[in-house]
Amino acid sequence: MDSQNRAAPVKKIDITPPYLIFVGDETDPSYAKTGLGLVHWRRGHCRGQLRLKPGAVDLGLPDMTVAQARAAGIRSLVVGTAAVGGRVPDAWTGTLIAAARAGLDIVAGLHTRLADMAGLGDAARTSGARLVDIRVPPDALPVGTGRKRSGRRLLTVGTDCALGKKYTALQLARDMTAAGMNADFRATGQTGIMIAGEGIPIDAVVADFVSGAAECLSPDNSPDHWDVIEGQGALFHPGYGAVSHGLLVGSQPDAIVLCHAAGRSHISGWPDFPLPGVAEAIARTVDIGRLTNPDIRCVGISVNTSGLPAAERAGYLAALGDAHGLPCVDPLATGTGPILERLRREFGP
Amino acid sequence: MDSQNRAAPVKKIDITPPYLIFVGDETDPSYAKTGLGLVHWRRGHCRGQLRLKPGAVDLGLPDMTVAQARAAGIRSLVVGTAAVGGRVPDAWTGTLIAAARAGLDIVAGLHTRLADMAGLGDAARTSGARLVDIRVPPDALPVGTGRKRSGRRLLTVGTDCALGKKYTALQLARDMTAAGMNADFRATGQTGIMIAGEGIPIDAVVADFVSGAAECLSPDNSPDHWDVIEGQGALFHPGYGAVSHGLLVGSQPDAIVLCHAAGRSHISGWPDFPLPGVAEAIARTVDIGRLTNPDIRCVGISVNTSGLPAAERAGYLAALGDAHGLPCVDPLATGTGPILERLRREFGP
Repeated sequence: MDSQNRAAPVKKIDITPPYLIFVGDETDPSYAKTGLGLVHWRRGHCRGQLRLKPGAVDLGLPDMTVAQARAAGIRSLVVGTAAVGGRVPDAWTGTLIAAARAGLDIVAGLHTRLADMAGLGDAARTSGARLVDIRVPPDALPVGTGRKRSGRRLLTVGTDCALGKKYTALQLARDMTAAGMNADFRATGQTGIMIAGEGIPIDAVVADFVSGAAECLSPDNSPDHWDVIEGQGALFHPGYGAVSHGLLVGSQPDAIVLCHAAGRSHISGWPDFPLPGVAEAIARTVDIGRLTNPDIRCVGISVNTSGLPAAERAGYLAALGDAHGLPCVDPLATGTGPILERLRREFGP
Repeated sequence: MDSQNRAAPVKKIDITPPYLIFVGDETDPSYAKTGLGLVHWRRGHCRGQLRLKPGAVDLGLPDMTVAQARAAGIRSLVVGTAAVGGRVPDAWTGTLIAAARAGLDIVAGLHTRLADMAGLGDAARTSGARLVDIRVPPDALPVGTGRKRSGRRLLTVGTDCALGKKYTALQLARDMTAAGMNADFRATGQTGIMIAGEGIPIDAVVADFVSGAAECLSPDNSPDHWDVIEGQGALFHPGYGAVSHGLLVGSQPDAIVLCHAAGRSHISGWPDFPLPGVAEAIARTVDIGRLTNPDIRCVGISVNTSGLPAAERAGYLAALGDAHGLPCVDPLATGTGPILERLRREFGP
């Protein structure tokens, strides 16, 4: 039993900064996406990297040993790479144990539970370090109540999975904050939780508690505050629609942003299922969302245009926006400005 | 680890008949609903009852000791009462251990896992008996594929929870079988699983796997075969909508029967949420269900009329049926005949 579970029911996973990012012996940047994402979105929390060999991916952070990290006041070792095949390489174990023994919390989203890794639980108990499994939802999540909460909420939803719901929410929250708005990103998936430093892995929650978990994730707040909630799954997805439904109802969003991938014709990995139309996806989201927020409305479309020739991007976005009467952006390429503008026009500054 | 988890991934919970129903010291029939339901729906599987004191609820079965049950060829002791407050009374433990030691499988839907009850795991290991926790879904459930399966499926859905989805499905399956149709009840909740002798507790499945679990529950079958699937939750429920969504998409029903409670105006326990209209509930179910079965249609309305004066029942059912152009029954009071008739007209004998 790790210390995370000792206290009264915790309603969110939380991670204590600053971080030492563990890269291990990973040489392929595509398997170090979590570490790269952390550096991109939370540079201020990332104080060092720990690489087990010289050719390992360089995140652009100072290389540190566990002892150096401890001396520098670092509080958590965050595993920033995927263990290929889900198994934790033996070469990692010694370093993680040393870090736990030195009092660093160990944070990971591995298939193996940290507490099940030989020696790691003992090391953590000795020092009082926490073992934080990002894949494991908090205990004792409640059933959704549907009670109206104070503050405002924006949820990113999608025509499919893996097309930019997390990225869009992160960029919106960043741009809203930069524009002087009172906004927080709320994480619902592993990478998002690493970046936010807290959250709930919604897709790992038992179905009866998904909307309750979403309620815990965006509690009452000040009237001008925006929770910008990372969407999960997609309502028209044959595997993951239930997650999206519960997250939508529990989030009771005032505003949604529909995320889409230009050129994608079918649900990724489900070739028999064509993508829903943008209008259809918005309408279904609004239909279901009205249960807990009768004023729910769509404030924009966010498109991943990486599949288009650059010369076609602007025309594509303009045409799609016009067709639906909504601002339409590619957050990576154009920023989220037009969506923020719409948001402020509809809801005030 | 109980023996249920030792083999290759099991896709359903299963219970081996015949049963000894354990009543314990329960004197209030309303806490013995599982036992009473078993006797009502599966009289042939129920060979005896075990009561710890003379005034305990009488299910109308022969009283038996563990030794007598064993001698009579009984294979499973099924806990047929709810442990009030979720805790297992100490008085029960000795009997359950004796039964496990005698080789009877122990079957229960308690909050306490059977394997966590002192001495019970050891007793089961000694004899090879299984400890079957009805609340615990099978391991290794898959993500829903949406693949079209052979055979036919009917799903009961509701305007709310706790208004007769299980009862309607059981009665439909019984009446269909009696009418010579090829039909099986498919259980998705604890009591249903006890009655069916197999099933998956859908509301206890992690959200990402709900539709996959529903697919496992009603696999490919012969073209004339009907799975009659017990619904869970309600699409317009602020807490349990996600479960209903995933079960609907994974069940890919050809036919739905909408269940409703006469006179109920609000979601039970959620007084701020009015019940959806019957037409609205049917339309939403069909909208979402079309994803995996474009031909989904509603074939009837099943109303729990226990809240109405008996003299008003017939008029109420006739008016509701006329308003929606659907057969409308109270299965307990009128049987399901008109729905079966509609089903055969639409899908053939």
